[in-house]
Amino acid sequence: MDKHSPKDKFRRKAISVAEAQAKILPLVGRTEAEYVPLYEAQGRILAEQITAPHPYPHFRRSGMDGFAILSSDTADCSADHPVLLEVVDEIACGALPRVPLAPGKVARIMTGAKVPDEADAVVMFEMTETVTQHGKVFIRLIREIEKGKNITNVGLELAAGDPILAPGRNIGPGEISVLATFGVHRVPVMKRPRIAIFSTGSELLSIEEPLQDGRIRNSNTYMLASQIKEAGGEPYILEAIKDDLVTAQRRVQEAFDEYDMLVTTGGVSVGDFDIMADLVSDGDLEMLFNKVMMRPGSVTTAAVMDGKLLFALSGNPGACFVGFELFVRPAIGGMLGVPQPFLTEITAELGRPYRKINSFTRYVRGRLEVREGKLFAYPAELDESNVMITIKDSDGLIVIPPSTEGREPGELVTVLRLPGCLL
Amino acid sequence: MDKHSPKDKFRRKAISVAEAQAKILPLVGRTEAEYVPLYEAQGRILAEQITAPHPYPHFRRSGMDGFAILSSDTADCSADHPVLLEVVDEIACGALPRVPLAPGKVARIMTGAKVPDEADAVVMFEMTETVTQHGKVFIRLIREIEKGKNITNVGLELAAGDPILAPGRNIGPGEISVLATFGVHRVPVMKRPRIAIFSTGSELLSIEEPLQDGRIRNSNTYMLASQIKEAGGEPYILEAIKDDLVTAQRRVQEAFDEYDMLVTTGGVSVGDFDIMADLVSDGDLEMLFNKVMMRPGSVTTAAVMDGKLLFALSGNPGACFVGFELFVRPAIGGMLGVPQPFLTEITAELGRPYRKINSFTRYVRGRLEVREGKLFAYPAELDESNVMITIKDSDGLIVIPPSTEGREPGELVTVLRLPGCLL
Repeated sequence: MDKHSPKDKFRRKAISVAEAQAKILPLVGRTEAEYVPLYEAQGRILAEQITAPHPYPHFRRSGMDGFAILSSDTADCSADHPVLLEVVDEIACGALPRVPLAPGKVARIMTGAKVPDEADAVVMFEMTETVTQHGKVFIRLIREIEKGKNITNVGLELAAGDPILAPGRNIGPGEISVLATFGVHRVPVMKRPRIAIFSTGSELLSIEEPLQDGRIRNSNTYMLASQIKEAGGEPYILEAIKDDLVTAQRRVQEAFDEYDMLVTTGGVSVGDFDIMADLVSDGDLEMLFNKVMMRPGSVTTAAVMDGKLLFALSGNPGACFVGFELFVRPAIGGMLGVPQPFLTEITAELGRPYRKINSFTRYVRGRLEVREGKLFAYPAELDESNVMITIKDSDGLIVIPPSTEGREPGELVTVLRLPGCLL
Repeated sequence: MDKHSPKDKFRRKAISVAEAQAKILPLVGRTEAEYVPLYEAQGRILAEQITAPHPYPHFRRSGMDGFAILSSDTADCSADHPVLLEVVDEIACGALPRVPLAPGKVARIMTGAKVPDEADAVVMFEMTETVTQHGKVFIRLIREIEKGKNITNVGLELAAGDPILAPGRNIGPGEISVLATFGVHRVPVMKRPRIAIFSTGSELLSIEEPLQDGRIRNSNTYMLASQIKEAGGEPYILEAIKDDLVTAQRRVQEAFDEYDMLVTTGGVSVGDFDIMADLVSDGDLEMLFNKVMMRPGSVTTAAVMDGKLLFALSGNPGACFVGFELFVRPAIGGMLGVPQPFLTEITAELGRPYRKINSFTRYVRGRLEVREGKLFAYPAELDESNVMITIKDSDGLIVIPPSTEGREPGELVTVLRLPGCLL
């Protein structure tokens, strides 16, 4: 019996998901950094630590429209003993005080403007009354104003040199606000890994072709492209690999020369035409695993060639989706330097019974709901590996460890939160 | 006292957030639909109902690599009474059966291939032994196979005409998988609303300029651009509006001619240079509200002109952010036909005390955590309207209704989940 016979393909050593993930991560290489304009940085992964080049705020800032005052001028001030203070300056946002303040003198000031060095409080405009006497403008105050009132001190939010954003961080509106504040207008981000997608076999219809009996359209490559984009990679859909081992080897080699990672769908099972199984058991690729103790996607396969990873995912949509989320997403995240590249693990109460049993851990697509501060997970009715329709309605993958008994509502389960979670 | 005096600007009628939202939504017009290639549909909003043009699966599909059989051939079969069945056909994926099956005959079949009409079960390859006799190939079976085994029936997931995806749906990997499966290669999506962003005042430094005393960089317009992209709009950062009412009016009018919506930041307070407050109290714009019973962002203002909306948000980063999420995001979602355009409301236990009191509802930035199936919300230490640094670390806005008492850990609070939630 030669090594490529179907029988040989059965002899696969199944390893756990954690073991499989542990085999991948050390092989993941970092992509390089590149600079992009701030406006285009959204959704990219930060490549370097950003520290505050100056304190923030960097000047004492008024929190109100009103008057900058010396609080000592209001000591013992009340409705019965009002105080009149002369307005000697007007400080707009972005302007600097022009007149030094002295006791009895105040400056009109706008929200966000620099408070004069001599002032130690800002009184709200609404708490004052303007009085004109002998051509001079005064404000009348009828209550004491405490020192520091309505002034934001230098460095309240950040001191110079404070770390602001760590490398590996996903850039969203809050990060963009910080970067703009500190003038980081060219942002160091990780280059998007370029990832080639192959489907296998010649039986798939293109998405433009009319339906034919016995054939299905090639949906997995588009789904994978979408998952790759979501994970921060740049997908390239290549022509399908046909069932010819020599050509397949050449095309895989060419793709490794051109791209940072390869993802294939289909052909990993034990069938006669399972080209990926044959290819990975061959010499040029170093097989990392070809069986994982999980459902769906137990045939998920990974290999490495010259330091680059190939993931051979199932052709079943559900299994392909799960295989991507458990293995390819973390690999892409690792290339981008994301500190926690795996799906976020949370716990939830099972919302309805789950009665399937299995010797392998199941990753069941499901919805999440929050009621009264508690999380509930609802497994999808259809969660077989070949089911496509429930992928779109899934907030997470409910982890059901091997068990000979079903799971009951109310039991706590681990859920891997999917990126598109609608919760 | 003329109508533009600061004193007049104080006389604002505060309305609730819900009232303010209710004033906006009826004024939101839908954008048009456009077609994009499936590959570019990710993150777009579906414009039309998609129904299944055919059942799915559309043929009886094998769930295994193995043999399509007549289950009746295995009746009473056991280890003591094995049965031999002749292999008369081989059906690859995408191929059609060539030989009609009769009792005693089977077809080799691949996962995903069409099951011959006469067969009513598929037996796994691993459960068979191949035997060659007189030049014919047989399989030996030693157990009964139940009818229907390993066959996925036509329409298991969807019948023809079943609704698949509703308009207003955000397109992710699961949706793309469905669309590809049904050959929807040109996808009807909503056009992205074109949204102009103005900052106000001449005091802001550009993000490229070196720091100057008393001045800050223009960070809100970049944050808003990022929020607009996240909400599904197309942001256009325009030159800042200066403190000259006539010019400001002209520029706002021009922007209304060109764009679908206007968002401004700053100038809505009661200061002397608050151009937006002046502009909105003027004749051409119909003011919807200029005070909302909320913190931060009570000065959030909305107006309408010729059926198009203008949102004048606070210049304070925190208040600007919250104002966008509560009012502008739903307006953009409404234009896109998103069925639930508001931030998702969930409940969580307060994880630490929140001691600030207020006569207005507070929207406190905070983090979410899940422990043992329960959600906990942690208010940020710095949540003032002028604070920028905590925006990036927020999973949600914790809603603290008006109260004269602080809130204690363990109390249930409502949280508006932010799009970038890291939970």
